[in-house]
Formats: sequence, structure tokens, C-alpha cells
Amino acid sequence: MRRVRAVLVAIPLLLGCLRGQDQPAEAGRLEDLRGKTVLVFTPHPDDDVFGAGGTIALLNRNHNKVFIVIYTNDDKGSYDPEMNSQRLAGIRKAEEEVSEGLLGTAKENIRWMGYDDGMLEYAPQPKLTEEATAIIRRIRPDVLLSVDPGEWYERWHKTDHRMAAFNTIDAVRAAEFWLYFPNQRLQQGLEPYRVPLMYFFYPSPQEANYWVDIDSVMDLKIEAALKQVSQFEPAVNKYRADWAPDDLARATAMMKHEQPRKDGHYVEAFRRATGFNQY
Amino acid sequence: MRRVRAVLVAIPLLLGCLRGQDQPAEAGRLEDLRGKTVLVFTPHPDDDVFGAGGTIALLNRNHNKVFIVIYTNDDKGSYDPEMNSQRLAGIRKAEEEVSEGLLGTAKENIRWMGYDDGMLEYAPQPKLTEEATAIIRRIRPDVLLSVDPGEWYERWHKTDHRMAAFNTIDAVRAAEFWLYFPNQRLQQGLEPYRVPLMYFFYPSPQEANYWVDIDSVMDLKIEAALKQVSQFEPAVNKYRADWAPDDLARATAMMKHEQPRKDGHYVEAFRRATGFNQY
Amino acid sequence: MRRVRAVLVAIPLLLGCLRGQDQPAEAGRLEDLRGKTVLVFTPHPDDDVFGAGGTIALLNRNHNKVFIVIYTNDDKGSYDPEMNSQRLAGIRKAEEEVSEGLLGTAKENIRWMGYDDGMLEYAPQPKLTEEATAIIRRIRPDVLLSVDPGEWYERWHKTDHRMAAFNTIDAVRAAEFWLYFPNQRLQQGLEPYRVPLMYFFYPSPQEANYWVDIDSVMDLKIEAALKQVSQFEPAVNKYRADWAPDDLARATAMMKHEQPRKDGHYVEAFRRATGFNQY
Amino acid sequence: MRRVRAVLVAIPLLLGCLRGQDQPAEAGRLEDLRGKTVLVFTPHPDDDVFGAGGTIALLNRNHNKVFIVIYTNDDKGSYDPEMNSQRLAGIRKAEEEVSEGLLGTAKENIRWMGYDDGMLEYAPQPKLTEEATAIIRRIRPDVLLSVDPGEWYERWHKTDHRMAAFNTIDAVRAAEFWLYFPNQRLQQGLEPYRVPLMYFFYPSPQEANYWVDIDSVMDLKIEAALKQVSQFEPAVNKYRADWAPDDLARATAMMKHEQPRKDGHYVEAFRRATGFNQY
Amino acid sequence: MRRVRAVLVAIPLLLGCLRGQDQPAEAGRLEDLRGKTVLVFTPHPDDDVFGAGGTIALLNRNHNKVFIVIYTNDDKGSYDPEMNSQRLAGIRKAEEEVSEGLLGTAKENIRWMGYDDGMLEYAPQPKLTEEATAIIRRIRPDVLLSVDPGEWYERWHKTDHRMAAFNTIDAVRAAEFWLYFPNQRLQQGLEPYRVPLMYFFYPSPQEANYWVDIDSVMDLKIEAALKQVSQFEPAVNKYRADWAPDDLARATAMMKHEQPRKDGHYVEAFRRATGFNQY
Amino acid sequence: MRRVRAVLVAIPLLLGCLRGQDQPAEAGRLEDLRGKTVLVFTPHPDDDVFGAGGTIALLNRNHNKVFIVIYTNDDKGSYDPEMNSQRLAGIRKAEEEVSEGLLGTAKENIRWMGYDDGMLEYAPQPKLTEEATAIIRRIRPDVLLSVDPGEWYERWHKTDHRMAAFNTIDAVRAAEFWLYFPNQRLQQGLEPYRVPLMYFFYPSPQEANYWVDIDSVMDLKIEAALKQVSQFEPAVNKYRADWAPDDLARATAMMKHEQPRKDGHYVEAFRRATGFNQY
Repeated sequence: MRRVRAVLVAIPLLLGCLRGQDQPAEAGRLEDLRGKTVLVFTPHPDDDVFGAGGTIALLNRNHNKVFIVIYTNDDKGSYDPEMNSQRLAGIRKAEEEVSEGLLGTAKENIRWMGYDDGMLEYAPQPKLTEEATAIIRRIRPDVLLSVDPGEWYERWHKTDHRMAAFNTIDAVRAAEFWLYFPNQRLQQGLEPYRVPLMYFFYPSPQEANYWVDIDSVMDLKIEAALKQVSQFEPAVNKYRADWAPDDLARATAMMKHEQPRKDGHYVEAFRRATGFNQY
Repeated sequence: MRRVRAVLVAIPLLLGCLRGQDQPAEAGRLEDLRGKTVLVFTPHPDDDVFGAGGTIALLNRNHNKVFIVIYTNDDKGSYDPEMNSQRLAGIRKAEEEVSEGLLGTAKENIRWMGYDDGMLEYAPQPKLTEEATAIIRRIRPDVLLSVDPGEWYERWHKTDHRMAAFNTIDAVRAAEFWLYFPNQRLQQGLEPYRVPLMYFFYPSPQEANYWVDIDSVMDLKIEAALKQVSQFEPAVNKYRADWAPDDLARATAMMKHEQPRKDGHYVEAFRRATGFNQY
Repeated sequence: MRRVRAVLVAIPLLLGCLRGQDQPAEAGRLEDLRGKTVLVFTPHPDDDVFGAGGTIALLNRNHNKVFIVIYTNDDKGSYDPEMNSQRLAGIRKAEEEVSEGLLGTAKENIRWMGYDDGMLEYAPQPKLTEEATAIIRRIRPDVLLSVDPGEWYERWHKTDHRMAAFNTIDAVRAAEFWLYFPNQRLQQGLEPYRVPLMYFFYPSPQEANYWVDIDSVMDLKIEAALKQVSQFEPAVNKYRADWAPDDLARATAMMKHEQPRKDGHYVEAFRRATGFNQY
Repeated sequence: MRRVRAVLVAIPLLLGCLRGQDQPAEAGRLEDLRGKTVLVFTPHPDDDVFGAGGTIALLNRNHNKVFIVIYTNDDKGSYDPEMNSQRLAGIRKAEEEVSEGLLGTAKENIRWMGYDDGMLEYAPQPKLTEEATAIIRRIRPDVLLSVDPGEWYERWHKTDHRMAAFNTIDAVRAAEFWLYFPNQRLQQGLEPYRVPLMYFFYPSPQEANYWVDIDSVMDLKIEAALKQVSQFEPAVNKYRADWAPDDLARATAMMKHEQPRKDGHYVEAFRRATGFNQY
Repeated sequence: MRRVRAVLVAIPLLLGCLRGQDQPAEAGRLEDLRGKTVLVFTPHPDDDVFGAGGTIALLNRNHNKVFIVIYTNDDKGSYDPEMNSQRLAGIRKAEEEVSEGLLGTAKENIRWMGYDDGMLEYAPQPKLTEEATAIIRRIRPDVLLSVDPGEWYERWHKTDHRMAAFNTIDAVRAAEFWLYFPNQRLQQGLEPYRVPLMYFFYPSPQEANYWVDIDSVMDLKIEAALKQVSQFEPAVNKYRADWAPDDLARATAMMKHEQPRKDGHYVEAFRRATGFNQY
Repeated sequence: MRRVRAVLVAIPLLLGCLRGQDQPAEAGRLEDLRGKTVLVFTPHPDDDVFGAGGTIALLNRNHNKVFIVIYTNDDKGSYDPEMNSQRLAGIRKAEEEVSEGLLGTAKENIRWMGYDDGMLEYAPQPKLTEEATAIIRRIRPDVLLSVDPGEWYERWHKTDHRMAAFNTIDAVRAAEFWLYFPNQRLQQGLEPYRVPLMYFFYPSPQEANYWVDIDSVMDLKIEAALKQVSQFEPAVNKYRADWAPDDLARATAMMKHEQPRKDGHYVEAFRRATGFNQY
């Protein structure tokens, strides 16, 4: 283990009295960043939108450069007995591009890692970490967003969420030290890189420590989310590419109703971590 | 990820204020079910009895059809230096059949998945999930019981318990969507199936949210459990097939003493989950 | 599952009311042991010192026989672009031997399992468990120390820490039953062995239940830790084998500042477990 | 290694002068068998027909009971850009059933092992062997046909053919000894079984040592083979379920032209092996 | 299996009388190609030069576009006790670029797959095939050169050579059918591709069926090969970047002496295969 | 690839005209060696005796130090339905020790690698190679004997024989270069080592190129082989520890009859290889 980490981690590890209660002041607010590079890892093409879509919209508005990396192709989640995996993967890709496009992310900033839905746990290890490490070393983000791996315990029981959460964090660690996957430096010219700031979406309620007010982009977020038609009823049962007006109204209302609120505002919740010390 | 799930999960995920405190009223009590199909997954041939034996007895009494699926053959857990794995597996199988028989489960409703004790973590993945998925799609249970995978964090550190817990839940998810393991539909005629109701035994104390009063079957549960002679002293140290009266009395008293009580009744604790939203 | 375990585990599992609050009286204090065999498993060559170095020093002073087993060679954790893995592994080995030597552990009692840094998760399973099992069966410790696997949930998201934590506990379980890895008995003459007492370092704050007062060895612990020069700034950035006086003073002060205190004393925190029932 | 095998294998192993030249007289001719159980393992649903379809037709005519076990679902071998894997698997299954039906094999005697096309090499090992072993122990064939694993060297470079060839032979060996996969005996009642006679289709030319005259069923074999429309031009390029008369005539002529002849007769070539000694 | 293949393979498979004896006339000579795309897969950075360097020089002279894909980084093959893997990988990369540069291949046409020396057998499967398939679908070569997988039997016992040989051929097969790795089409726009012509270097002597006269580039080939200084004595024992004149003269003579000759000419031997039928 | 190897291999690779026909004169006869260290790798505890027992007896007589390394414990090869794996492994170990003892090999020179019978293919790779490499680097043999991996093609289809053959050769290669498994040098003090001479038993008939006259130890070899009672009829069917006189006479005659002869002498056949060039 790296001592630099052990030192920093010692007090929270043993006493656990300093973490999470307060919003860290020194780093500035995530939603106020400008001109930065933001890298979002998401298990499926929609977790980014559901978990952090409002925040992504705000970051794009503020002229940050947002990259979306999607682990899986989401090619199994349909109840339609006539659907097939090749077609569903195509539908999901198109939906995600429209969805993120509404949030301001350019299509060429979306990267697909190409794993099959529900099978990320069985992707070859540590190859998967090596691939995510290369992405981090290439994009060199100022801020990284990912699905929460948990702070003191392992979050998520077994699915793509868990593997995506752990793998991204493993890649953050590996990216710092060039002796992890040293061929990347030699053969691809990728230098090591330390991610300075991380926000994890989908935190467990007891560990959320950071909330972004998304009032100003709430309608946009819902509109973006609902572009993923195939994941909602009725299209999830029998595919159709568009919404019937009634269904759309119902889904919109449901999404609005379910979006968390805090102090009277729509919010997205995160677990904020900096450096090595809090993950 | 499936949107239908994301929508349902949104509030508990982010606010965490709605789960667990109250017994859900709408579904009725587990122990009052009649004429239903109940599927129990258990890591070893005894966890079903220790964790949910009283409940299983009640379910059988109520003319439900109970199936027991056992992941491992339990062929290593003896301190007897003269024991061998082939013999122990045979002993364990016979004991479990007697034990479940006392609880009312027919021998032909017990299915052995055939993995070796302590080695379930190393069973090939996702083949193990595929096998459990086929079982669910074939039996199509109204209620599923399994060892608890944890709600917000991963329960169990590494052993058969963990793999059994996670694998069963993975199989529940996979069973819904026919594009998981599509050969099962084509070649075996197995249609997708959504499990409506789940109860997890062996919950962590802080997450137990459902208790079944087993006063009326307490003696039966103990009798059934004690049929697994090889797992108790003195037979675990030096195998013998039957009980000396003294040992039996002592073991009976210990089991009675250790069975949890709540509000003056013997109970079995569960974490109750419905649909996608709470696991 | 072994019934003897199920019986013992039943009440804490279901009611959770008995664990951790009180220091167990019957076993005596860890730091008062004399003439015993102590086996420490550590993920990297420094976690033993950071997590339990003071306790190790006290145990050595009390004429216990302390063995250190190190899973990985720590060959990647340097920011120095001129470093290479073969050299770093050599540096780390030498540093650890000096470090543990100061705490009183003989070099011949340090065993290296030989896995590469950051890659323990990918070590072949269950071979890794088999190797740790053989070590336990050979050394037959009165007390075992290891990194905490968590009590109710899985501690650590994915890294060497997690695998080391889980694998050691798996090996403790396997070591008891000779039918796990039976070739060890036949071919190497290794008889099964039950570990009577376990203390886990690096517990989560909410689960620490045992604290060792290390006031009397605090300076020694710091001196030992700082022998691992390569893991501290500035050597972690640009390797040098020794300390500049200024850097040494600064690191010493930082370590002193960060060492947890309890009731006015420097302490090391543990989660204490006995037998099968609490892990 | 089993000595019984070593003894028998010694001379051919070391001198190699006795094998293959002559047709073994003592066992009778394969095509003359009556009332026997014949088990055919095939990598894909068509290798059985192309490699041994004439022989299968003769065996069925002679009132033997023929079982076909198919490793893969053949869901990738189409050039049609509109095809998808779920659909192709369905087409292939239907074609194979028609094809084997013409040869006299009942649909219920065809078993699909369910692996994906081109991915058999990556099927979990030794699980795949365990599954084939169970099939052999259940069906207990008098004669086994399979794709040739090679006699002195490993035939086939990497594909489904290689894995199917080796896995079947591994399963033949395992099936003899009950201590391979002993749970099959305990839990499924499957007793060990020795396969007395084996014929391997698709041998290398230099190792073929047995030829079956298929003159009397040549037209039937071609008709059966051509039922697998999707594997021929033009349907392999753009799927259609039936033949245009011209295409059918051309394919028929090509198949007739390519079927090997020996001494003026259409033949199917095999490598014949008995017991342990020649594979 | 694809029928189109089965039909073509039938006669050589069963009679084996048509292959290899004659140089196929219809395709033209490899060394006469002009303006084509040639893709060379090589296990290590030097097998391309030793096995086919003269041919590569001729192809470059004829204005073909030659791409070199190198599976491993060759980071272990030194007897120098002061060497380390990171440094050796850098040396090998530079040497290969100089070596291929002399043969006329541009540095930007050399692609490193990034696997560690001697460990290609343990690269994750079928990920390795997926990566090679993507390369073939992207480059779309008119001719592919690779290390020989063997015709009737598996060539090479276990090393990087074997895996490179089999994996390349597997990728050639997969590249044809878009349902292998369908995400490549969807996410990367890679269409399926059939490789029309293949030549395998390092054939077994009994299977070589094609020889390229390299008289005109013999000196160039030797000069290029000797740029890989680290692989020859004395640098393989104690690294130095350049040649002492005596050593260079000796190595040059040895290489000349060892280069195969046929009919009075220096030649490179291949096994020529076309389409599916001969591999 | 190492150039030193490529150069040596070039001519036999391409012309194939120099190998095998003649007994190499320069190295002396294997059976005449004195005072050397000989390392024998064998898949099961009997292949050493059947394949090279006479040669081992001669080597021991000549005061060479012979080490036997046995990959598997041979715990499955019995037809006795009352046998179990733990007992059979014990029987096989005792038999092998008696058997090798008769040939002159001391019990403490026999090392068991501890893998289960029939499962060596599934042993973790490259861990298995790492273990064999450590053995070679520790024993540093003048001559190595092993089961033949084949010269131009891969010998053996899938079983313990194949894995043992390939793994040993892989370990020979790895042992030369310290950058393979470099932790062995750092942590265990194991320096790299080049095996100068190799003889492979169980060659294919067409590749045997070396025969040892064992007339003088023929009776001893048979006596030693027959100590492995459990592998012969009738004990393989129903275990008994000793021979009935009739059975013993019959087995002795059979073994004598089957032992290969050449030029009127009993011989053991090998494929002799030196350095890198012939394996």
C-alpha cells in the first residue's frame, strides 16, 4: 500500500468522525465548475441520466467538456418476446445519444466499452480495469463521476452496478501509478494521471453527502430521460419507438414525483470523495 | 438498466425513508398463504431448516407446494479424521431428506445443484446463474425464499453463503428477461418469469423487517434440525448416525434457548422485498 | 454448513444484541499474552506496521513468537517515472524487513506469498485459499491478526485489501476441516487446526471493539513505519533511500498527529472475534 | 493413470506398428448393428449429418436407438446483415430436426447442450465435461460417435470442433470412474459406465481406418443435408427458408460430387477406436 | 458449422489427396502483388522478421501497404541479471521499429497489442479473439500472414506461438460473420470481412507448400534482423545497444548459413491456404 | 522470441532434415551418466515407472541423484464402488513410494504437487508453470525427463498428460529467464537455470529417437510396476492391498510381453531434445 494514502486515511479509518457531514468548501461547488473536463462512467446507457442527468446538463451549460463512458450495451432489458439482442442494443444506443444530446453532450464524447448487458461481472479481469485506466489516462479529467462503490462496505450486490462501481475506482487507483499496465505508457504514450475530484451517484441514503440543486434543468432532465422510450412501459413490454401522449404524460408525472427533493428543491444526491482518502 | 426499475427505486435509493419499518399489508402474511408455489434456495442442506424451518413447516401445513434447491453437497464439514467426502455427502443428503420430510416437504421436491461444499464461489460464472434461472423459470414460484444478499451493502464475506445469496438474486433478475440465456426458451421451452415476492432469511439484525411466529411448530423445527446429526457434537467430531439420549437432550435445550423470540413468541426473522425495488 | 456454527451464530445473527459492546473478559488482553504463537496476515508490506505495529512490538516484547505473512510484493506504488517493478519489489522487501526488525520480528519469520501489487484479486482461486490454509495448519497460531473483512457486510471495495481480508478468513475456516485440501494432510503431513482467537485491524469505525494502548511503543512504531521510506514523500515521487532531516521531522510529526487516541492514550483499533461466531 | 490402460497402450504407444491398417473383425461392422443404443456427439447441428449422416440413416434403419447431442446452437454463421442470433438459433434448431428426422432420428432423441456458436472453447471447464459425462452415464451407449480428437496429436486448431472432440473423449474417460463427479451417482443415481466402442468422424486422411458404404442412403443423406438451407448459398447470404429449384439442383450436384468414394462406393470415413487403447 | 465451408472441405478432409503439392496458379505469386493491403500477425517483435522479413521487404518494394500487429511486448527474454521488464519492453519496441523500418514498413503501421511476453496463453479469451477480429475488420487485408497453426494437427506446444497462431485464425473466422462480436458493428462501425488469402510462416517442414525467393533482399533481411541486438549474444547476456564488429560479423555469417535454401536460392517457407478450406 | 533460439531453430524448422535419425554422440549416453542430478516430471504416480522405470533404475545404480515430481494424486482411477478419493490418494502415494524405492529412489526425493487426478487441465495457469519453474530452479538438474509434448504438433488430447507435458516444457523455458516469475529470485533466492538435456518418455512412435536398453533391470522394473497393485486387475475393480499368486503371475507375464523390444533387447523409448531447438 502506498504510505501517502495510509497517512491520510488513518483518522477517518479509525475514528470515523470527520467524514461527510459538511459540504467541503475548499473545492468549490461541482455545479459551478467552468471549462473543466468531466468524465462520467455509467454501467448502462441511462444510469448517467437518471443518476446525474441534471448535473450533467448544468456542467454542459457551464462550458465544461463532458465525456460519457458506458460499460454495457443494455441488450437484454426488454419484456418484448419479439425483441432480439442485436436490435435492442441498437435502439439503446440511439436513445442514449438523443438523451445525452438533450443534456448538451456531443455524440462524439460518448464512448461504448462494448460489454453485454448483465454480464459485466464476467468481463475478464484485470483487462476491464486496464481498459478503464487507459480511458482515464487519455481523457485526464478534472472531475470523475461514477456509480457509488460504497464508503465502508461494498455497495451493490452482484450486477453490472457493482462491477462498474468497483472497476472505475480500481482504474482511478491504477491510473496514478505508471507501473500499473506499463505498456500503456510505452506503446500508447499514456502518462499516469491522478484524478483530483470524484462524485459518486446512486449513493446509499446513509452515505449521501452532497446534493446538486437541479431546479433549473428539471424539465430538461425528464425530457432527456423519457427519450429512453424502450425502458418505460408500454414500450418495455411491446416495443414502439415513440410515446402515446397519455403514456408520456403519465411517465412525466411519475418522474417528477419521484425525483428527490431537499429543502424545497429538486436535487441529485452524491457521495463526494477527494483523492484516496474517502473511497 | 431497466427504466421500470429505476423509477421504482428512485425514492428509496435517494431518500431511504420508506423501507422496512412497517409490515406491508397489501400482500398478506407469508405464513397465511395457501395453495401457492414456494421456492427455497439454500447454500447448504441445513440452512433452510435453521433459517426458515418453522416457516417451511407452516407453509407445508397450509397446502402450499414447497420446493427446496440446495447449492452444495456439504461434503467437508466434519472434524472426524476417518470421514471422507463421498461418504459425508451421502450422510448429509439422507439427513436433509429426513429433516425436510419432518417439515412436510416431499423428497421429490428437493433438488441438489451438486456443487462441492465451500467451493461455490469458484463455480463457473455465469453458468451458475444460468442454472438457477432455469429452475426459477421452470418452477415459477409465487414466493421465493433465499439467504439474504443484503439491502444496501453486500452481506457475507466470502463463502458459499455469499455466492448463494447473490446468485439467487441474479437469477431472479435474469429470469424476467428472456434475452438472458435465450437458449432456455428455444431449447427447453422455458418462458421468462417475474418472481412477485421474496423473503430473505439470515438477514443482518439491522435489516430484518419481517418476523414469522413459529410457536406452533417450534418443537417440530427442533426435531427436524436435530435430524442433521452429523453437524452436532459429538457426531461432528466422531461420526455416529444416532443420538445418545443425553446429547440429544442437551442439543434440544440449546436450540430452544437460542431460537430468537419477539414479543414473547419464537420467531424466524426475514428481510422482505417485493419486486425490483428492495434488493 | 456446520451445525456447531449455526447454533452459536443464531442469536447474534437474528437479534444482534450481544456483540461488540464489551471487551470480552475471559480471553485475557491481547497485549498481555506471553509465549504464544501469533500469525499476522497483511496485504502489503506496511499494512502490518501501520495497522498493528505497536501491538506487534508489544507482543514481541512479551516473548511471543510473531510470524508475518505478506500477500503482495508492493511493486507498483511509486510515482517515480524511473522506477521499475523488479527494483521496487526489492526496495519494499528490504524496507519491510528493517521495519519489522525494529518491532522485534525476526527476518526468518517473515513469509512472502509472492503476488504482484494490486493484482491479488486476480490470483487464482481457490489456490490462494489453499496456500493460506497450509500456512495456518503449519504455524498453528494461538492468535491470528488480519485485515478486517467486515462483520455484517463486506468491507473494502475491490483491491488487495478485500481479497486479503476475505481469503484469510476463508483459510481460517478451511484449516479446521481436513477435507478442505485433503492433499495437505496426506502429502505434507499438515493436520487440521482451529484458530482460537482473531483480531482484525483496519476495522470500520462503527465496528471497532477493541483498542490496544500503544503509548509505550509509540515512538518505536513511528520509527519503524518511517523506515518504509519509498512510500512517503518525497521518495515516493523520486526515489531516494534515506531521509533528509527536514522531511523526516515533518513525517514524524504527521504520523504522531494522525495516530488515533482514546481516553488520552495512543491506541490501535481492532475488531475482535472469537471462533466462528463473529465473522 | 490407470494401470489397466497403461498396459494395453504400451505396445502401440512405443512401436506403433499395429494400428489402423486392418478392419477389426471381432466387433462386427458398425452398419450391421441392430437393436443397439448409439450416441452421437456433434459440435454444431449439421456436423452429424455431413460427417456421419449416411451411417446414422443405416443405423436407424437397423432399428438401433440413435441419440444426437449437439454442443452449440449455431447462432452466428450467417452473412445476412439482417439476421440476429436469437432468430438464427431458432432456424438452425428447426433445420436440424427436419434433417435428422429424414435420417430416421426422432426429435425427442435430439438433445441441445445450449452453448453459443464459436464459443465452446470458452465454456466453463470441467463443467462441460461433467455435463457430457452425465449424458453418457444416463444413455449408456453401445457405440459412441464423435468428431475425431486425433490419435497421436491434437487434431483441430482452436474452434468448437476441437473442444467438442476433446471434451467428448474426456467425458468417456470420466464416465468409467465414479469418483469423477461423484455427485452424479449420489444425487442423480447415475452409475459409472464404460463405452465399449467408438467411431470418430472427420478424421484426418492419414488416420481414417474405417469406411461405411452409404450407397443405399446416399440420396437420403443429401436430401437431409440440404434441409439445412440457411447454411448454403444463397440463404447463407440473404436468408430464405426454401430452395429455388436451380439452387437446389446445383447444391445437390455439388454434394454428390464431393462425397468421398472408395472402391467405387460412396463412403463415410471414420477412425475406429476401442476401449482406452486407441484414443 | 457453416455449410459453405463443409462442402468445400469435404474432399480434402476425407481423401486428403489434393493439398499442397502444387503451387496454386490462379492467385498469382505473393511476391508479385502490388498495391494491396497486407496484414502480418506476429507473436513477438522479431518473428515477423525471422519468419517473413524477406517477403515483407519484397511486398513493401512492390508498393503494398504492410501492417504489422505484434501480440506481445517481449519483456522477459534476457539473461542479463540487471535487466528489468519495463526497460526491456522499451528496448524491444525500438529495435522492432528500426528492424521493420529497414524492410520498408512505416512505424505508424506497427500496432502493439500489449500483452506480456510468455503470457499470451493466459490472455483473457475470447477477448483476445475479439481484439484481433476488430483489427482485421478495420484493416481489411487482401492478404494475411501469420504464424502457422498447423493444417491437420495443432502445431506448437504451449507458448505465445501457439496462442498467436490459433487466435489469429479464430479471428479470421469470426471476422466474416457479423454476429461474432456484433457490438463492433454497432458501436465502432466495423463491418464483417472475409480474408481472401493467407500465408503461414514457421510451417512444419512436412507442411510447407510455398517458397518465396528472397535472394534480392537477403542482405537487407539479415541487416534488419541484426538490429534486434538484445536478442543475440552477447547483448542477450549483458545488454549493450550496439554491436562490436567481431560479434556482428559472426552473427551475420551464422544467419546467412542458417537461412534455408531451395534450388540454389535463399527462400522463406510458408504454408499457403485460401479461404476456409485449408486451415 | 529470443533470437538465440530462432537462429538455432531455423534449419530444422524450415527444412526438417536433420532431426532424430541419429543418436547424438556428443552428449554421451543417458544411461552412462554418473553423479548427476536427474529430475523426472510425471503426470501420475506410475507414468514414471511405466515410461522410464528401467532407465530410472539404471540412473540410480550409477549414483545419480534422481528426483521425482508428481503432478497429481491419482485419486479417481478405481472401479471399486466402495473406494473414496481420500483413501485412494493414500493408497497411490504408498504404492508409488514402494515402487520408486525398488528402483532406488529415496522417498524424500519424491515431491507431490498435489493436484487432483484428471483435473490438471483446470489447475490455475500460469500458477502451475510458476510452481514447476521454482522446482527446476531449486533442483537445477543436469537432465530432465518428462512426458513428451510432441515435436512438431501437440501430442495428447486433453488430459493430465497433455497439461503435464506442456507445463513442464513451459517451465523449462521460464526457468532460463529470471524475468519470468521474478519474485522467485527476490523472495526465495532462486536464480535462473538452463536445463541442458531433456528426454521425453511416451513419445509418439514416429518421433521416438532414443532407446535405452533395460535388459539388466527388466525384472526389477516389472516388480516395481506391480507394486502399484491398485491399478491392476483385480484390485482396480475391488481393492485389495496384495496380489494373489495367480494374478501376479498373469500380470508379470503380460508386462513382459508388452515391454517394447529393439534389436533383441528390452528398451524404453524416448524423444531426445537438447536446448531450445527440438522441443
